[in-house]
Amino acid sequence: METWHRATEARDVATVLQFIAEDAVFLAPERPATRGRAAFAQGLRDVLNAHTIRSSGEVREVKVSGDHAYCWTDLTVTITPLDGTSPKVRKGPSLSILRKESDGAWVLIRDANMMATDSAELALKVDNLERELMADGPGG
Amino acid sequence: METWHRATEARDVATVLQFIAEDAVFLAPERPATRGRAAFAQGLRDVLNAHTIRSSGEVREVKVSGDHAYCWTDLTVTITPLDGTSPKVRKGPSLSILRKESDGAWVLIRDANMMATDSAELALKVDNLERELMADGPGG
Repeated sequence: METWHRATEARDVATVLQFIAEDAVFLAPERPATRGRAAFAQGLRDVLNAHTIRSSGEVREVKVSGDHAYCWTDLTVTITPLDGTSPKVRKGPSLSILRKESDGAWVLIRDANMMATDSAELALKVDNLERELMADGPGG
Repeated sequence: METWHRATEARDVATVLQFIAEDAVFLAPERPATRGRAAFAQGLRDVLNAHTIRSSGEVREVKVSGDHAYCWTDLTVTITPLDGTSPKVRKGPSLSILRKESDGAWVLIRDANMMATDSAELALKVDNLERELMADGPGG
């Protein structure tokens, strides 16, 4: 987990990918599933082309059963655009399924990402726009 | 799964609870984890006091390993207020961990709920407010 976070910050995609199964699926709210390591890698490279990612995770639970395990983590991810605009901070839990491969290595096969989306930000924007409209007064 | 959905619609909380471990944890974006069957039951009863819940799920995958399993489902939930105001539809995947108890019954122990939050709705509201402000013209 720590290596994953440090490798992402260092733009070392190859190191991140060694923890991900070829058939991994990434689930998140409000977007289609990302299917497969190759698709994940492309998405990560796209973000890293224009941003720095700093992330950390607090592992709440790891449970092994047979050759599978689940892991519940509380994540904090800061995404900073390289163009100097404001960083965005996303926080929330993830629930991941890991599989022990024949060589003994554990790899991620399913990931449920529940980091907060932009809705808090949008709620604030709605508030501000409504205030602006009210300031205009009736009839504009 | 089908029984869970039908029981929820029928306000039969007791039937839903038989599928949930006492130590279950429910994870979702933008709110604290719901810890334990009792807390889940309270939350469900609170919603059912003022709403009807109609839900369905398409199971994408179930994988058993030892006495645990994971299940990936695409959910659609319609929550209709009893006061006659507009229903809200939420859609998205869930990733659940199940455990086989000593009596052979499978119960839910961890649940990652990735149904879309209100952000799509808020984005629309921002759009509408911005249009309204523009219609007011410069200087209001």
